[in-house]
Amino acid sequence: MRLAIMGAGAVGRSVAELAPEYGHDVVGIADSGGSVVDENGLSIGDVFATKDETGTVGTADSAAVLQADYDVLVEATPTTLGDAEPGFGNLVTALDRDRHVVLANKGPVAERYDEVMALAAESAGEVRFEATVGGAIPAIATIEGVGPSRVTAVRGVLNGTANFILTRMAKEGLSYEHVLAEAQDLGVAEADPSFDVEGTDAALKGVIVANVLDGGDYTLEDATVEGITELPTSALDLAAEDGRTVRLIVEVTDDGVHVGPRLVPEHDTLAVSGTMNIVQLETEHAGRLNISGRGAGGPETASAVLADVDRLD
Amino acid sequence: MRLAIMGAGAVGRSVAELAPEYGHDVVGIADSGGSVVDENGLSIGDVFATKDETGTVGTADSAAVLQADYDVLVEATPTTLGDAEPGFGNLVTALDRDRHVVLANKGPVAERYDEVMALAAESAGEVRFEATVGGAIPAIATIEGVGPSRVTAVRGVLNGTANFILTRMAKEGLSYEHVLAEAQDLGVAEADPSFDVEGTDAALKGVIVANVLDGGDYTLEDATVEGITELPTSALDLAAEDGRTVRLIVEVTDDGVHVGPRLVPEHDTLAVSGTMNIVQLETEHAGRLNISGRGAGGPETASAVLADVDRLD
Repeated sequence: MRLAIMGAGAVGRSVAELAPEYGHDVVGIADSGGSVVDENGLSIGDVFATKDETGTVGTADSAAVLQADYDVLVEATPTTLGDAEPGFGNLVTALDRDRHVVLANKGPVAERYDEVMALAAESAGEVRFEATVGGAIPAIATIEGVGPSRVTAVRGVLNGTANFILTRMAKEGLSYEHVLAEAQDLGVAEADPSFDVEGTDAALKGVIVANVLDGGDYTLEDATVEGITELPTSALDLAAEDGRTVRLIVEVTDDGVHVGPRLVPEHDTLAVSGTMNIVQLETEHAGRLNISGRGAGGPETASAVLADVDRLD
Repeated sequence: MRLAIMGAGAVGRSVAELAPEYGHDVVGIADSGGSVVDENGLSIGDVFATKDETGTVGTADSAAVLQADYDVLVEATPTTLGDAEPGFGNLVTALDRDRHVVLANKGPVAERYDEVMALAAESAGEVRFEATVGGAIPAIATIEGVGPSRVTAVRGVLNGTANFILTRMAKEGLSYEHVLAEAQDLGVAEADPSFDVEGTDAALKGVIVANVLDGGDYTLEDATVEGITELPTSALDLAAEDGRTVRLIVEVTDDGVHVGPRLVPEHDTLAVSGTMNIVQLETEHAGRLNISGRGAGGPETASAVLADVDRLD
């Protein structure tokens, strides 16, 4: 396949770097500063040498990538809320041209799922988005395998930053502020961590799952969201005395999408450690399925993107 | 799709009972005593009322099912070693007629994988076998999603009977013989439990995984297999003193397929309890993926069979 990649952060870059191993050519890459297109296939090493040197992958306009001759648009620009732009507009451009879209960007399928699916239905291109939920974890593919109508509930730990903080707070008895600063030093939390610690990122993933299970109709506004910023260390200590711990749990049930800190048994399947993620599916005929793995990271998320490319018809 | 089902035990029966919900018709079912065919679609309730009453689903010869007008043959006769008959022969008949085959029977893909794939390559029919490894766990689909060449090792607990026995021995300090008798009373172990407790069943699953990872060439003879029949309770006590427990682990690595009791940390991801199974994939770019769920049971295994039917082109 011929891939065009919008976004050259950790995920976009890893997709580009791994694409040849998966048998694909990259014909265009754009970042926020510019773009580069070569319909004979880009030399990925050269592209990122240029980016490392100049700060951008190339001097062309990003629209040049959208108009290149690709089979699949990989949308890996940052997730935005509300109108989900520019990701949504990029998706529209590709579908209008009957090209496939694989999303790493959560915005379009969290905030505008119904529009995305209506556009896909009118296009010869498909839209896939495995990478938007749980990084390397094949959450969407597993739900598709079981059949969305036969998945009765989904629970999970879907934000590695929040989970890292909770794990460290519980293990070391340290305060939220202390562990957050540590996580920022380690690069596990961003300078502005609000998207992760306030539960927004986890909620978007829950909303995407709800859309898959119910065929649409959910946006972030439909989720109830509580983060971990107000959680005192004493709450973790009390939980530990009772053989429990606290995890930021996403729940997708008939009652909608709920995100918040929850007590779970210390050695429960849901109580994954550090930056690990887990998705737990309750199914109608096959009991409970648990899938855990790395929920973020360039190569991990790129693996999910490239698995989606392989699933395109 | 029009399904024909060979084998009317727990799995075959569940496939038949769930098929309508998945949008499929069952046009034939055979058990060891006979068969019934209706190319307009069988009434599954009637078929199993007959079986419950007479001991067999019908009076026709089982070959009648193989020659019926179906799209997919579901092979759910008991797993046999060596020549893997009659499952292998049933598969050959279907592929010769350019029909798809979905296996719940492990024999053909454990003992004669290379022949099966050569026959499938010459047929318009496909062969799928998700249900043969880990029951409800989508082990094969997940390996396919990652790409077999990018899975560097697979470990797992793939026999629920052995795991139930080890879990009870460790928890209650009871002997192997005591817990085995209890498991037989509960229906968790069969009257002749050797297939499960000697590691054969787990090894067959490991061999199937090895065939998927390497494109074939493995049979049960290539596996080293040690069961749990000689494991003293004292070994579990010693492990517990050190915060560990014992699990019957299947390992598929560059060194081949190995099955045997292994020490694992008491709360390790691999240390699932009771009849649960787990598959752990080591991947080249996406780290470690763990998938746990029910490894056996009629509806659970039938779910995997019917997911395979949905994956057929």
